[in-house]
Amino acid sequence: MGVWMRSILWDAESQQLRIINQLALPAELRYLDLKTFTETFEAIKNMAVRGAPAIAVCGAFALYFAARESVTRDPAALLEATRDAREALLRLRPTAVNLQQVTGRILQQASALEGSADDLRAHLLELAQEAAERAVETNLLIARYGAELLHDGDEILHHCNTGALAAVDYGTALGVIRMAHEQGKRVHVYVTETRPCLQGSRLTAWELQQYGIPYDIVVDSAAGYLLRTGKVDRVLFGADRVAANGDVVNKVGTYLLALAAYDNGIPAYSAFPLDSVDFDSPSAEAIPIEERDPSEVLALTYRGLPAAPEGARARNYAFDVTPHRLLSGLITDRGILYPPFFRNLSVLKPHGREE
Amino acid sequence: MGVWMRSILWDAESQQLRIINQLALPAELRYLDLKTFTETFEAIKNMAVRGAPAIAVCGAFALYFAARESVTRDPAALLEATRDAREALLRLRPTAVNLQQVTGRILQQASALEGSADDLRAHLLELAQEAAERAVETNLLIARYGAELLHDGDEILHHCNTGALAAVDYGTALGVIRMAHEQGKRVHVYVTETRPCLQGSRLTAWELQQYGIPYDIVVDSAAGYLLRTGKVDRVLFGADRVAANGDVVNKVGTYLLALAAYDNGIPAYSAFPLDSVDFDSPSAEAIPIEERDPSEVLALTYRGLPAAPEGARARNYAFDVTPHRLLSGLITDRGILYPPFFRNLSVLKPHGREE
Repeated sequence: MGVWMRSILWDAESQQLRIINQLALPAELRYLDLKTFTETFEAIKNMAVRGAPAIAVCGAFALYFAARESVTRDPAALLEATRDAREALLRLRPTAVNLQQVTGRILQQASALEGSADDLRAHLLELAQEAAERAVETNLLIARYGAELLHDGDEILHHCNTGALAAVDYGTALGVIRMAHEQGKRVHVYVTETRPCLQGSRLTAWELQQYGIPYDIVVDSAAGYLLRTGKVDRVLFGADRVAANGDVVNKVGTYLLALAAYDNGIPAYSAFPLDSVDFDSPSAEAIPIEERDPSEVLALTYRGLPAAPEGARARNYAFDVTPHRLLSGLITDRGILYPPFFRNLSVLKPHGREE
Repeated sequence: MGVWMRSILWDAESQQLRIINQLALPAELRYLDLKTFTETFEAIKNMAVRGAPAIAVCGAFALYFAARESVTRDPAALLEATRDAREALLRLRPTAVNLQQVTGRILQQASALEGSADDLRAHLLELAQEAAERAVETNLLIARYGAELLHDGDEILHHCNTGALAAVDYGTALGVIRMAHEQGKRVHVYVTETRPCLQGSRLTAWELQQYGIPYDIVVDSAAGYLLRTGKVDRVLFGADRVAANGDVVNKVGTYLLALAAYDNGIPAYSAFPLDSVDFDSPSAEAIPIEERDPSEVLALTYRGLPAAPEGARARNYAFDVTPHRLLSGLITDRGILYPPFFRNLSVLKPHGREE
């Protein structure tokens, strides 16, 4: 099976964006060809594409599609239409910050361009392609830095999906594991199934099978058992948004994993590109936590039976906050950061902030 | 809807044990009529009946069935056959201790009887019926003691199923909630779905609907979010076995809940009958944790798709250990115990231990 796996690819010939349809996995590897803003918007909305870095790259192409679909010949009006498109995208997934950062940077660069509306359209496509390339390069840096932390024989606990599917290629936390495996280190992964949408058992297990990395799926609740009984050497997960103090907002359940790792003296790391850091949030307390449709919790069939009584009510909180005090280190494309996170992150704060 | 709900009932006319088939819930309320040792053994094995106190009562009737099916006229041989039946039952669910305690006590009482084999059979039936009655009385005591801890307006986080289904009637932790509700306290319950077998979303949600208690189902991972954001006033769960120091072995995931409660200063209580206490285990470290078939983890359909790739591997740890340091109190049929648990539990240690 392919070691290389690009989950988001621009097809120059058809001028379409080809993505792996994550909703069809693990049953089949099916692609979606996106050719309009609306199609891309829907793919992000219904989670055909998910994962903070992957959403950001799709969002970049969505801006280009919006510009391509606009009939105006006025560059300023076109830029305005693109800005509106961005606002609509940002409302879709309020927690992950990469989409905001990447598309914000693109609009800033685009607005600096002097030229026709068609020049602007061409520039937006270039910038989206660059964002995709940059994501892959960033992932490779994260993977190489992070792989240094993993040892031959390590048992790793991993949450959600953070692989090529979530981040164009390689991925963040899963990229680290994949790199260690490619370096010849024998690792085994405990894959949390990651309810409600099962990104662990559907997507991470599928990716690990492609890479030939041994794994076992466990229910999310079993993380405590594994950590308390010495079955895990390291805990790895990604991030949807990181506050300036190192607090990590990530897939719901991450806090419990990090807490149990801390309680048992087992190192826990979050891996992410610098684009995931929200330097405007001093801590994660005020970062919005997306609440999704309860049907994601209830739409489950267990041994042919419904998982809940008719008329059952549910709440579906998609993310949680892991306080930085529980983390051993942050694996970024600029290296591994250790506490104090606030100080060590601030060094990486970009000058001339966008927006 | 019935406020009274006995999940295990001896039918004197047909001489059968009628139980609610927990595998058919929440789709339908269906009963199983058990009339042989093997049928009862299978019902425990396949989890048509589950919950430490409920298993213990079914096990008591299983001993009677074993005796009824034995053709011997020798009381000693009959007792031996009953002992063998008990050994087979104990191997089925090694973690919960109630089955061991209740059937151990029954065999001790039965072996003290002087009389014919038929006298012994009749005595075993009486003792099983007594065990069922005693379970209900015990539950009511737990419920009344525990309800004192709940206040009007409380938001409660509850794990697994600990209601009438798990414990003949009323239940342990859920009995506490039900009693508070019947006392007129307005409570709302966050019901963890409790993967893999969904005892929360399938059974607890169903019971709460019967009682008219408002609830919301959440995925197990969301417990950390709820506890960190002040949405929960109290955490309640049962116990499958409690060590002499107050360590609680319970449904996998309990440790994470208790840990997050502790991390956020929210009280967490385990509710159980004294039969759940294993005074022979100084701590829970050596208590066996049942590992069940991985198919329970993998046999899931999500939006019509399999939850894991073909050939996926999984591990299925059914319980975990919650160290007593994380617990605010233990709700028992003898009252609420507070730390130091070792000393306060030891007062309740029965003299002239069985077995």
